[in-house]
Amino acid sequence: MTRSAGTTLRLNMPQWQGGNDPGYHFGSQLLQWLAPAPGGPVETVPVPLPEPGETLAVENGVVARAALLEQARAARRAIEKHKPDRIITLGGDCLVDLAPMAYLNLRYAGKLGVLWVDAHPDVMSPKDYAHAHAHVLGALLGKGDADFSREVERPIAPSRVMYAGLDAWMPVEAAVIDGLGLRHAGSASLADSSKPVMDWIAEEGITHVAVHFDLDVLDPARFRPLLFNKPALPPGAFEGVPRGRMTLEQVVRLLGDVAASCDVVGLAIAEHMPWDTLELRDALARLPLLAPR
Amino acid sequence: MTRSAGTTLRLNMPQWQGGNDPGYHFGSQLLQWLAPAPGGPVETVPVPLPEPGETLAVENGVVARAALLEQARAARRAIEKHKPDRIITLGGDCLVDLAPMAYLNLRYAGKLGVLWVDAHPDVMSPKDYAHAHAHVLGALLGKGDADFSREVERPIAPSRVMYAGLDAWMPVEAAVIDGLGLRHAGSASLADSSKPVMDWIAEEGITHVAVHFDLDVLDPARFRPLLFNKPALPPGAFEGVPRGRMTLEQVVRLLGDVAASCDVVGLAIAEHMPWDTLELRDALARLPLLAPR
Repeated sequence: MTRSAGTTLRLNMPQWQGGNDPGYHFGSQLLQWLAPAPGGPVETVPVPLPEPGETLAVENGVVARAALLEQARAARRAIEKHKPDRIITLGGDCLVDLAPMAYLNLRYAGKLGVLWVDAHPDVMSPKDYAHAHAHVLGALLGKGDADFSREVERPIAPSRVMYAGLDAWMPVEAAVIDGLGLRHAGSASLADSSKPVMDWIAEEGITHVAVHFDLDVLDPARFRPLLFNKPALPPGAFEGVPRGRMTLEQVVRLLGDVAASCDVVGLAIAEHMPWDTLELRDALARLPLLAPR
Repeated sequence: MTRSAGTTLRLNMPQWQGGNDPGYHFGSQLLQWLAPAPGGPVETVPVPLPEPGETLAVENGVVARAALLEQARAARRAIEKHKPDRIITLGGDCLVDLAPMAYLNLRYAGKLGVLWVDAHPDVMSPKDYAHAHAHVLGALLGKGDADFSREVERPIAPSRVMYAGLDAWMPVEAAVIDGLGLRHAGSASLADSSKPVMDWIAEEGITHVAVHFDLDVLDPARFRPLLFNKPALPPGAFEGVPRGRMTLEQVVRLLGDVAASCDVVGLAIAEHMPWDTLELRDALARLPLLAPR
């Protein structure tokens, strides 16, 4: 599909408080370095790193609620400054997509299609889990915590949402998925074919789609820079939390097929956790000759 | 130890032909991004990436012999431009240390101590192996291939060389190690103590030391961006090639102890192979919105 002209905003958002791990901040910086050079305006949402020894507080059921809301509003202000036709968001934790998707659904008159490429449904509520990176799609659908849903003037229509790479979920998530009738395609059905997603696009008549690409959809045994590969994890950590099973190559193919049939107006990359690279950076800064004096 | 004043040259050297894998070029670029900002002059040795489909030829027993020699000479010219007191080299494959160490041994009147932190001895010859990254210490000792040894006006004295983290080697390497009486300390002896290296420094009266830090000395099960973790390796690949067993923390401690007792005048970081990050970079460049048009 030929893309129409217009402005593409590059939004750098090193938010880490939504997953309560500063590694997401570094992950965003590295993504910015890795990504092809921007072809339009660039905005970077200010996100402070923790002070030494600082820990985040749970605020009415959500870790760092006030900081997260302020960052979502700062992202929205940055977007409104340019009123772009398309947004590339480089996160940061999954919550980075709150302002971009909320804006894009207004921009495309409530008809935005949302392809959520993720091993997790991100529709939990504060009563289920205190980390808001697991709440973001719920907020975009107008569900969940009122503070976050309020940032979404026009909720995404459930029929315009599809999950890709989602193989398992928890009962509290099933209630939302089944209650709203959200479509989903597991990793096996997308291993060699994009058909489940192409069917959704055709059946719903989607012309403009925003993609949320949580790197956690990738198999952590094959792709290391993911939360699940945190070094020195105690046994049983993340027990019961589904792992992704896709490959980067499969995601590239899927998104290429999507782009061939409709206009991709949003792309967020989230949850990049480059443990080895972070460890190397910190080690280099402590070596003779390299250590800052 | 208080470091005397003087110039520290930062030498970026994305050489990959010595290991015949362009991944080393990217590894060097990422190292440059990760390392603390330089406090003095910076030089970058020009190293071309392969043309699409290009493969390197074996030239008289060494893959890319002419290109490697030209890069060593370009590094030497860059060094001589500044005549630094100290050199930080960010590789690239292990051969990047040829010009820096050769210069430093002249600069310090043939008394340079060389601490070779590596799982491999790097003293092979073209008759044993065609990849020159496994020849570099041999050349610095005045052994091995004449073209490469010729770049070393004053060979390092064997008593001034010590290996750290070297646990195993091949018979052809044993002949050199035993023949020259090169000291070595395995990973177990350095796990909790730097004593074997401190003893060498004391006994030899070493005042100026250059460190070669081949990241392959690290345990590939704990640190992923290493040659041994190449994706989709056939079974039995690298069979018989020893893996490193150290941790980054142990190397940081060892080099800190060394720096406390003598002047570290050289530091090269080599063999950085960030497979996951490279795969992610290539994938980003193929995604909708991000792909360069």
